[in-house]
Amino acid sequence: MTEGIKIATIGGGSSYTPELVEGFIKRYDELPVRELWLVDIEEGKEKMEIVGNLAKRMVQKAGLPIDIHLTLDRREALKGADFVTTQFRVGLLDARAKDERIPLKYGVLGQETNGPGGLFKGLRTIPVILDICRDMEELCPDAWLINFTNPAGMVTEAVLRYANIKKVVGLCNVPIGIEMGVAKLLDVDHSRIRIDFAGLNHMVYGLDVYLDGVSVKDKVIEMITDPNNSSFVKNIEGLGWEPSFVKALGVLTCPYHMYYYKSREMVEKDLKKAKEEGTRAEVVQRLEKELFELYKDPNLDIKPPQLEERGGAYYSDAAVRLIHSIYTDRRDIQPVNTMNRGAIASIPDDSAVEVSCVITKDGPKPIAMGDLPVPVRGLVQQIKSFERVAAEAAVTGDYDLTVLAMTINPLSPSDTIAKQIVDDMLEAHKEHLPQFFNEVQA
Amino acid sequence: MTEGIKIATIGGGSSYTPELVEGFIKRYDELPVRELWLVDIEEGKEKMEIVGNLAKRMVQKAGLPIDIHLTLDRREALKGADFVTTQFRVGLLDARAKDERIPLKYGVLGQETNGPGGLFKGLRTIPVILDICRDMEELCPDAWLINFTNPAGMVTEAVLRYANIKKVVGLCNVPIGIEMGVAKLLDVDHSRIRIDFAGLNHMVYGLDVYLDGVSVKDKVIEMITDPNNSSFVKNIEGLGWEPSFVKALGVLTCPYHMYYYKSREMVEKDLKKAKEEGTRAEVVQRLEKELFELYKDPNLDIKPPQLEERGGAYYSDAAVRLIHSIYTDRRDIQPVNTMNRGAIASIPDDSAVEVSCVITKDGPKPIAMGDLPVPVRGLVQQIKSFERVAAEAAVTGDYDLTVLAMTINPLSPSDTIAKQIVDDMLEAHKEHLPQFFNEVQA
Amino acid sequence: MTEGIKIATIGGGSSYTPELVEGFIKRYDELPVRELWLVDIEEGKEKMEIVGNLAKRMVQKAGLPIDIHLTLDRREALKGADFVTTQFRVGLLDARAKDERIPLKYGVLGQETNGPGGLFKGLRTIPVILDICRDMEELCPDAWLINFTNPAGMVTEAVLRYANIKKVVGLCNVPIGIEMGVAKLLDVDHSRIRIDFAGLNHMVYGLDVYLDGVSVKDKVIEMITDPNNSSFVKNIEGLGWEPSFVKALGVLTCPYHMYYYKSREMVEKDLKKAKEEGTRAEVVQRLEKELFELYKDPNLDIKPPQLEERGGAYYSDAAVRLIHSIYTDRRDIQPVNTMNRGAIASIPDDSAVEVSCVITKDGPKPIAMGDLPVPVRGLVQQIKSFERVAAEAAVTGDYDLTVLAMTINPLSPSDTIAKQIVDDMLEAHKEHLPQFFNEVQA
Amino acid sequence: MTEGIKIATIGGGSSYTPELVEGFIKRYDELPVRELWLVDIEEGKEKMEIVGNLAKRMVQKAGLPIDIHLTLDRREALKGADFVTTQFRVGLLDARAKDERIPLKYGVLGQETNGPGGLFKGLRTIPVILDICRDMEELCPDAWLINFTNPAGMVTEAVLRYANIKKVVGLCNVPIGIEMGVAKLLDVDHSRIRIDFAGLNHMVYGLDVYLDGVSVKDKVIEMITDPNNSSFVKNIEGLGWEPSFVKALGVLTCPYHMYYYKSREMVEKDLKKAKEEGTRAEVVQRLEKELFELYKDPNLDIKPPQLEERGGAYYSDAAVRLIHSIYTDRRDIQPVNTMNRGAIASIPDDSAVEVSCVITKDGPKPIAMGDLPVPVRGLVQQIKSFERVAAEAAVTGDYDLTVLAMTINPLSPSDTIAKQIVDDMLEAHKEHLPQFFNEVQA
Repeated sequence: MTEGIKIATIGGGSSYTPELVEGFIKRYDELPVRELWLVDIEEGKEKMEIVGNLAKRMVQKAGLPIDIHLTLDRREALKGADFVTTQFRVGLLDARAKDERIPLKYGVLGQETNGPGGLFKGLRTIPVILDICRDMEELCPDAWLINFTNPAGMVTEAVLRYANIKKVVGLCNVPIGIEMGVAKLLDVDHSRIRIDFAGLNHMVYGLDVYLDGVSVKDKVIEMITDPNNSSFVKNIEGLGWEPSFVKALGVLTCPYHMYYYKSREMVEKDLKKAKEEGTRAEVVQRLEKELFELYKDPNLDIKPPQLEERGGAYYSDAAVRLIHSIYTDRRDIQPVNTMNRGAIASIPDDSAVEVSCVITKDGPKPIAMGDLPVPVRGLVQQIKSFERVAAEAAVTGDYDLTVLAMTINPLSPSDTIAKQIVDDMLEAHKEHLPQFFNEVQA
Repeated sequence: MTEGIKIATIGGGSSYTPELVEGFIKRYDELPVRELWLVDIEEGKEKMEIVGNLAKRMVQKAGLPIDIHLTLDRREALKGADFVTTQFRVGLLDARAKDERIPLKYGVLGQETNGPGGLFKGLRTIPVILDICRDMEELCPDAWLINFTNPAGMVTEAVLRYANIKKVVGLCNVPIGIEMGVAKLLDVDHSRIRIDFAGLNHMVYGLDVYLDGVSVKDKVIEMITDPNNSSFVKNIEGLGWEPSFVKALGVLTCPYHMYYYKSREMVEKDLKKAKEEGTRAEVVQRLEKELFELYKDPNLDIKPPQLEERGGAYYSDAAVRLIHSIYTDRRDIQPVNTMNRGAIASIPDDSAVEVSCVITKDGPKPIAMGDLPVPVRGLVQQIKSFERVAAEAAVTGDYDLTVLAMTINPLSPSDTIAKQIVDDMLEAHKEHLPQFFNEVQA
Repeated sequence: MTEGIKIATIGGGSSYTPELVEGFIKRYDELPVRELWLVDIEEGKEKMEIVGNLAKRMVQKAGLPIDIHLTLDRREALKGADFVTTQFRVGLLDARAKDERIPLKYGVLGQETNGPGGLFKGLRTIPVILDICRDMEELCPDAWLINFTNPAGMVTEAVLRYANIKKVVGLCNVPIGIEMGVAKLLDVDHSRIRIDFAGLNHMVYGLDVYLDGVSVKDKVIEMITDPNNSSFVKNIEGLGWEPSFVKALGVLTCPYHMYYYKSREMVEKDLKKAKEEGTRAEVVQRLEKELFELYKDPNLDIKPPQLEERGGAYYSDAAVRLIHSIYTDRRDIQPVNTMNRGAIASIPDDSAVEVSCVITKDGPKPIAMGDLPVPVRGLVQQIKSFERVAAEAAVTGDYDLTVLAMTINPLSPSDTIAKQIVDDMLEAHKEHLPQFFNEVQA
Repeated sequence: MTEGIKIATIGGGSSYTPELVEGFIKRYDELPVRELWLVDIEEGKEKMEIVGNLAKRMVQKAGLPIDIHLTLDRREALKGADFVTTQFRVGLLDARAKDERIPLKYGVLGQETNGPGGLFKGLRTIPVILDICRDMEELCPDAWLINFTNPAGMVTEAVLRYANIKKVVGLCNVPIGIEMGVAKLLDVDHSRIRIDFAGLNHMVYGLDVYLDGVSVKDKVIEMITDPNNSSFVKNIEGLGWEPSFVKALGVLTCPYHMYYYKSREMVEKDLKKAKEEGTRAEVVQRLEKELFELYKDPNLDIKPPQLEERGGAYYSDAAVRLIHSIYTDRRDIQPVNTMNRGAIASIPDDSAVEVSCVITKDGPKPIAMGDLPVPVRGLVQQIKSFERVAAEAAVTGDYDLTVLAMTINPLSPSDTIAKQIVDDMLEAHKEHLPQFFNEVQA
């Protein structure tokens, strides 16, 4: 890496960008970013300019020599980059809204990461990511790809299997959120908590929890299953876990587990929400609109506090923290999506997992966790089966594989309904799924 | 084993017994059974006498020196036995009816083998089986336990983990049914077909299909996914698979997969049936009543053809075939439930699996199958997780583990509903679940 | 397979051929061979004609319609073959003599199968075998390759990794010899003994021993470690095992283990023999000369009993037995070299192992053995490491890999001596190792 | 852990103690040791007093409030300890001299860690370690056992399998020595080098080497195999590796690999040394004598530079570094001996391995390394087999297991010679091997 770090951010027009910029500003002393290239496509140009100008004002206010570049030319941005971050959304929030709405028509959760919606998000995203990987191979072969485009697990799996670049990390804000939740629950500083995370993206478990190096897992489980004290669990989704379930499980769950261990209630909730306030995508669309209005304000030169309501808190910060640790060979422990290499038994060594890693200059090194507890092995394997079939479907554009992926998703109620959802969604997302239609057109 | 083979059949009053007896008669030349002990409990005495007398007439007609003993004294029956078969049902069909009805109240499939109903069948059955194992250890330590009491997979898992006897085989008629179905589809004799079976009980897949030693799997899949020819699939449950799903899956499924890959349709069907004709248990109760009326006929001295409508065809025959192969060291290939020992990758070596085995005098030796195809690994692991937690719950009588087992079952819609079903079922089956209540009473 | 079975035997001029022919004659009823093609190279033409004429007389005497063809045209022989057996020896016995003599110069055992000599036998043989595989792919893609050219383990590993045909079995007479030894020790008929074999070629262990299906392993170990009764062990190599070693090992060894667990005595013995009577190759050369004199006798029309002194008893018979079981889908248990598929834990699934298999029309299906006992895991892994590096060296002609393979062989005393032996042997075998020299010449 | 750290050092009279004390002094700011208890047995009392007084002078000079306690009462020392370090030697250097001399009589390397000598060192040491573990369970259940008594791998394996305490780390100075060697070779500061270590104690490989996070493994291998530049390799043992061997191996070896990949030269060297200057133990005895003379000097109040000639450089420092990282939850990367947990494929999860770990307050967390390269798997497994059988022999006092362990050691030339060595050594070490003799006496 050269003295002046160059960052290329694909999907630079995202509303998250101010958080990213703030992260770089905060860590400038140890992570001297010289160039930050925001890249977007024609449709995102306006948003990129708004957010890019805010970024410029933030940097200026901080008095730092970071050059912000705005471009539609991805190849120029990638040339010689040290880190490439991806936060784009193929089809924008409109596509997400479809991912959520269409399955709901069949009484099925959309779940835009590792559910039925996530399948189609993956089908749209993976070809683009692989295309970026091919560009990187040519233009910045030593760069790290820091992906936080969802479904991050499936995308990482696809890059590991189908791309030639090997320096890829998938990132998620869920584990850091759990750590912060635990810290709050125990009323201690976040830095004193460490959790052994293992599983898959949005399907990660906290196998053990340490406060100052001493296991407090049992205590935490006791607190979150105590009806007089269960603030922690309730906060996450407004739905509490059954204490018996959590106690016998014996490990910490993540909020996304609600979709799997509480599917019926979640589908009812989503149906109700979809009716009353719109799906999450639709809510976010409104929030984003407001955010961009704020961003336009020429007097605004910090990350506006309203961004945190957008959700995805810590996301960009997690990315900057990771880049920081790689750049400085910091060797701290962070949970990321990377190649398993035996860290979690019974998941193939060459598959992507989400696991606590030591972050070195050579990237994340997963900590060996042994086997997952018996009760959670099944669901983890099921999502991994889903991710792998889905990744193959994304690459091949194979219809049957798509139906199969949808059917084996734990949220799917049957092969027949899976096929119906697939048919509807293929139609709805047609323009973003060329791999499924091009041959027919030819 | 001594010259004169002694068989002890626990649950001897079962309506299946005539099939068992017929099996022994047919194979008498190579499998000279001298004593067949039918054992039952007080509540089953009347049925045992009816079916026992029919058995005696059958043997007499065949002119064979097989002594039929009827007893309520299990220990006497076990003493010096060479093979112990178990076909009992704790709580009889009434209990099964509850296993089916209670989950349906919550819109959940009962599925009395590896579903919610199966959990409670396991909780009732496992302590009894382990008790039989302890008796066997003392009274017939060299005998083989041939279990076909369901849930056969969970029961085999429990025996492997919690009993001291090691000579146990779990048996199922599903694989043989699939082989027969394929033979019929291809219009060839059953003996020319061989299928590589691997998975778990009622969750078994046909990884490859051979006709005269040549793989015809692709052809079979083509036939069963051809809408003009899909007689095979339709026959099983009246519901056909989506061709895309089956083609991409690339292996043969078993009928019980319907519960998992077609849950919504199955629950609707079961709800409808429960309303119109009663649950399967209730239908079987009526069938059994008629069967026992037939059995009483002093002129009946063969297995009545009506037995085949009872379902469970080939069950007892499969048991006799297995006993025959062990006794004669026949070394043929049969799919049974046994310890994995590495035959299926990613299932622990010491867990029970259902897999094609060579049957030797020293019991079944599983054929190494390598890993399961990616798309099916998840569901198999999920059922294995379920079976293991359920077996532990059965042995410990632990409430939290029971809620956990119910929650992680793939048919469960949520932890909360799982808990409700558990609470209802614990109450309903109270008298057969002493391990859950005794301590409280004490 | 067509009605008339066609066999192609590469290295048809071997002195073993009469045993092969005898095997086909004995089993003709169930295994109706119509054509047996003996193939050899120019240098082997004379021997092939002698043995081929004997074969013709044998078939005539038996009154069977088996056509014996003699040819130097391998492709003609392969065309449409059902089974291809390989028993050739690149460089003939002269090369073997070098494999044995050169390491001895350095005080190192030659051990022509998985020792230093075996490395060079592999380097000479593997390219020829892979060439045959390419021909088979084109000329008889459905045929089975039954290899009994040593080093059979390394050759099978190479075919599994580097050839496109998948129907390959490596064969060895060692396991059958152990079974016969045990039968003799217990004074029972061979058919009543079954041994669970697991390991690698010439590095196979008997994990358990059954007489009529009951384990007699402990009894056998007691007998072979009883100084008053240790006829079994002594017979094999004239050197007895230490009883303590065998008892604690707890499994049966094979004769080739002498080279590894008794290296020093073996090297002394080989040095003495080499001086007094010549190496084994030289002894065999004399025996073969005598045998071929016998074979020339126009009145000889059976396999002459003197062949058994040649060593390698049961070799060809084992091959015919295997062909017979595949052809008739016999499903008996035979120990062969095949792809592991999980049968032996901690050996990769895609590596060759020697293990008890059920022999079906679709070939051998390995029986899952779980893990090897702790004390034997190391040596097995070491030979497997050696086989894999050696196979790669054979395919690439890479000098460094050859030195590495020689160094990691358990019989090697050091990297420096390994290099010296490699240098000497490369020079000595130059004409049969084109892959190491051709590039230089070009 | 309480404010004031208490360290108990078993074998406190060791000549290494000043290095340990120096380490604590250097790190006092972050690792405030309040009490250091040196424990020894009666025979070591004099040396303990000499070294203990030096320790007191060192602490005084440093002006630190560390209390040095000298005691023969192990239990008093253990009570409430935070860390227990073990550096004792059962039978002192006399026993080591026997470990080295006796095998040499048979032309076999003694190799006092994982060779024949190491077997007996293990037999003497393991029962004492397990005894310490039992005391710790009672007196300081939360303490960490930092073992650097050799054979550290076998001892760690034994503690993991046979003790109840789980907080154990085995330590070795070999990996740090390799890192320093590489740093010197590349002429860079040690802190810029990181090596992925994986294997077993004294059988560890450097799978990759990073300079500032970029792999320089190929460059390092090129340098150490360049005859004009091979200073690195030659320095270690005076014997160079064959460049072909190292290049094809493709990973870094450790000095102890000389015993296995260069056995013949090493045995010749050891025989020569034994004759000319005595075995290593005898040399060390002389060095120690001189050292203790130095230590007696009442004016000496620092670690004397002569200690470094003793060998074992960095040993005690490595221990203090480890304690420091655990105490401060430092999360740096150190190679230690710990439970595998899947970090190295094909070594059982519950076995001890030597592997790069992140050091947390909860101890070392191994980094997942995937599988070892093919060429090294065999030797690693062989040493692991040896360690496990040896540990079992140490615990049971079983003669046959001892002969087996000796026979399967890669340095053993045969079962018969192994037995002879075992017999001689049992006799020679009789007084320190009560588990082999007590039953006979009783």
